[in-house]
Amino acid sequence: MIQPKVLKGFRDSLPSQEIIKKQVIATLEKVFSSHGFVPIDTPVLEYTEVLLGKGGGETDKQIFHFEDNGGRDVALRFDLTVPFARFMATHLHKLPLPFKRFHIAKVWRGENPQKGRFREFYQCDFDIVGIDSASADVEILLMMYNALTALKLERFTIHIAHRGLLNAFLEHINCFDNSVEILRIVDKIRKIGSKAVSVQLEQLTHSKEAAAAILNFITIVDGETAEETLKRLSLLAGGEKEYTERMQSILEMLTSLGIRDRFTLDPSITRGLDYYTGVVYETFLNDLVDIGSVCSGGRYNDLASLYTKAELPGVGSSIGLDRLLAALEELNSPLVQDATASDVVILNQDEALLPHYFKVAEALRKENVRCDVYLSQRKIGAQFKYAEQNDIPYALLFTEEDIALKQCTLRNLATRTDVSGLTIAQVVEQIQGNN
Amino acid sequence: MIQPKVLKGFRDSLPSQEIIKKQVIATLEKVFSSHGFVPIDTPVLEYTEVLLGKGGGETDKQIFHFEDNGGRDVALRFDLTVPFARFMATHLHKLPLPFKRFHIAKVWRGENPQKGRFREFYQCDFDIVGIDSASADVEILLMMYNALTALKLERFTIHIAHRGLLNAFLEHINCFDNSVEILRIVDKIRKIGSKAVSVQLEQLTHSKEAAAAILNFITIVDGETAEETLKRLSLLAGGEKEYTERMQSILEMLTSLGIRDRFTLDPSITRGLDYYTGVVYETFLNDLVDIGSVCSGGRYNDLASLYTKAELPGVGSSIGLDRLLAALEELNSPLVQDATASDVVILNQDEALLPHYFKVAEALRKENVRCDVYLSQRKIGAQFKYAEQNDIPYALLFTEEDIALKQCTLRNLATRTDVSGLTIAQVVEQIQGNN
Repeated sequence: MIQPKVLKGFRDSLPSQEIIKKQVIATLEKVFSSHGFVPIDTPVLEYTEVLLGKGGGETDKQIFHFEDNGGRDVALRFDLTVPFARFMATHLHKLPLPFKRFHIAKVWRGENPQKGRFREFYQCDFDIVGIDSASADVEILLMMYNALTALKLERFTIHIAHRGLLNAFLEHINCFDNSVEILRIVDKIRKIGSKAVSVQLEQLTHSKEAAAAILNFITIVDGETAEETLKRLSLLAGGEKEYTERMQSILEMLTSLGIRDRFTLDPSITRGLDYYTGVVYETFLNDLVDIGSVCSGGRYNDLASLYTKAELPGVGSSIGLDRLLAALEELNSPLVQDATASDVVILNQDEALLPHYFKVAEALRKENVRCDVYLSQRKIGAQFKYAEQNDIPYALLFTEEDIALKQCTLRNLATRTDVSGLTIAQVVEQIQGNN
Repeated sequence: MIQPKVLKGFRDSLPSQEIIKKQVIATLEKVFSSHGFVPIDTPVLEYTEVLLGKGGGETDKQIFHFEDNGGRDVALRFDLTVPFARFMATHLHKLPLPFKRFHIAKVWRGENPQKGRFREFYQCDFDIVGIDSASADVEILLMMYNALTALKLERFTIHIAHRGLLNAFLEHINCFDNSVEILRIVDKIRKIGSKAVSVQLEQLTHSKEAAAAILNFITIVDGETAEETLKRLSLLAGGEKEYTERMQSILEMLTSLGIRDRFTLDPSITRGLDYYTGVVYETFLNDLVDIGSVCSGGRYNDLASLYTKAELPGVGSSIGLDRLLAALEELNSPLVQDATASDVVILNQDEALLPHYFKVAEALRKENVRCDVYLSQRKIGAQFKYAEQNDIPYALLFTEEDIALKQCTLRNLATRTDVSGLTIAQVVEQIQGNN
């Protein structure tokens, strides 16, 4: 006998989890499609060199890679951004531009597993490439808004900043040479606090004034409007114009769309990676700020420079699906509460009636009622337990009279109350009325 | 610069393909859920020993396996059956029985790629385990019927047989010792024809009579009803009772459900693998018989014996998703024809109007119209090309008068005809009326 064990850092998804995950993914896909975004898929395995570049580097140790039977060095993808860049370079000539795509799929990293971190997890990315405009920035922000709203997460705040503005400021105060390290330090502010950030900035720049100036730049001033903040930041950056105007356009369009109150201008958002060049953003759930951002991204000026000379500016965002699922659970979201294996189960009191049960089930399915049939004539207690294990809210029973009169009895399994003498149409009404 | 190449036997899925694949999967999932089947997922990587058993064997060479950074011998799953067996053994104590699950996911095999065969492909499996009954057999067959019907594949035939009946027959004619090889030879009849099967059977059994008897057993007799065939086969198998009765019950329930005409009793169906013990079936598209079965499976008497002493009889089926997608394409299915990136695109004639465009798009999305916005004010010809590349059937345009009067112009991009002066509600009606 072989022990049925699962690898460290990997996990099965049980039905109760998988039903919710599928519903969340379907909801997101519907929102993305409603914006004209199209799905793509790429292979799980790629040439290691294609995924890592010629150098390799830090990600190298975390990646699952091996030599295949043909002697090729291959690797499991560790994100969806690199395969997307490779995809764009491969198919550029036949893709419409701007290209709006989404990709929801698993990725793998050999990190040491810790709470909430796994070696196999989902990413959910959406991007617009081939255009550098406020309209594209706004479309991504609007879609983030629509996605979270569709998931019934009403209380969220999207923090936005402009990487270009921060860089202009760093240049203005002669700190641009250290900009990559400064971004990384500032990015940690929500984890380590502003004091620690200040100390680290001073260590890095060897200047109390520079550290204070940077801290001042990234600190939100209470009571200031976004427009006032933007004006102040622009002045601090030496009167920067281009990025200020872009940010101004974005804010105006968000206002015009009536969703501005979900956004806050927050210059402490940097997104660490030096990949970003324009607007950057992170999204926090007001009631679960501590879990960190559930949806982050920004504008970059060249997606696929590793593979093609064609310049592909873009803007995109990524939803942390596993984190989002944990949040929905913790917030006891209606999405989680409503996850059931089916709407109703037909109990089996007489195996000879199975053809009848099947026909009733088919009639209910035609009305979009998900209907399970208990397949054998076991003790009724076992059948109720089956319904409970599957979170099925209703059971259908038939007395001899019911069969003769073409009716049935509907039991609400939560309240343990019966309604008798119902036609199929009435059963549909009862079940769908309560959904 | 790195060449953006994809591994041999792997492929990208472009939007035009991925949209259809997602729609097919969503349709199948809806059917499975309507029967109370629940989704599960398992890790892509597992211990090689868990996937292959202690022996390894023939699959061994085809499997992608390697040593991970922790020195474990790990492998990419090569099917969904083995992980399902492992899953059942791992979680048996907390799963409801009978357990009805589906799993649609990628698997990997290192086979030499040939036409229509890839190293990365989808499987779509559905099973009922923990019960051995005609009702479970019928539910799987009914769900196959519902799944293919939901995909608008009206012209299909499900060929069914009973493995137990064939085995009883082989025992009756003293050929049971060779049963595994006989099953494999018979399984090839649709590929190599009955003459070649006869020759191979004779070579194997060293008996003209045995070969002739087997060929006689598996050959359909024109004009015979299924009941007559079943009676004949039962007699040939020495008056076999148990399996004959099971088959009889299945046929009766299919008749009662009014779907019997899609099924044909075909004793040449064996499914090769010695894993099956009861009813077995394959599904052929009447207009594309040559592509082989698109949905096959059967009953087995013990799913997870490799991992647990608990006996888990089951019945299941598997849809060959890639083959099915190719068939839908070849049959020019409405599913393929209707695959578009969005329902309508708002053309951009004046960038200053972007806030207006965005608001109209949001209003359309609220009415379940998928609406793309062209994000920059490029030449109108480029915008029409964009619509064409995305197969978008309609475009929305605004004259100055339209903006003032809160109306718009809808262009049908296939017929190149305009309807002017429409309200948003009228646009929704026009677009949805034609879907």
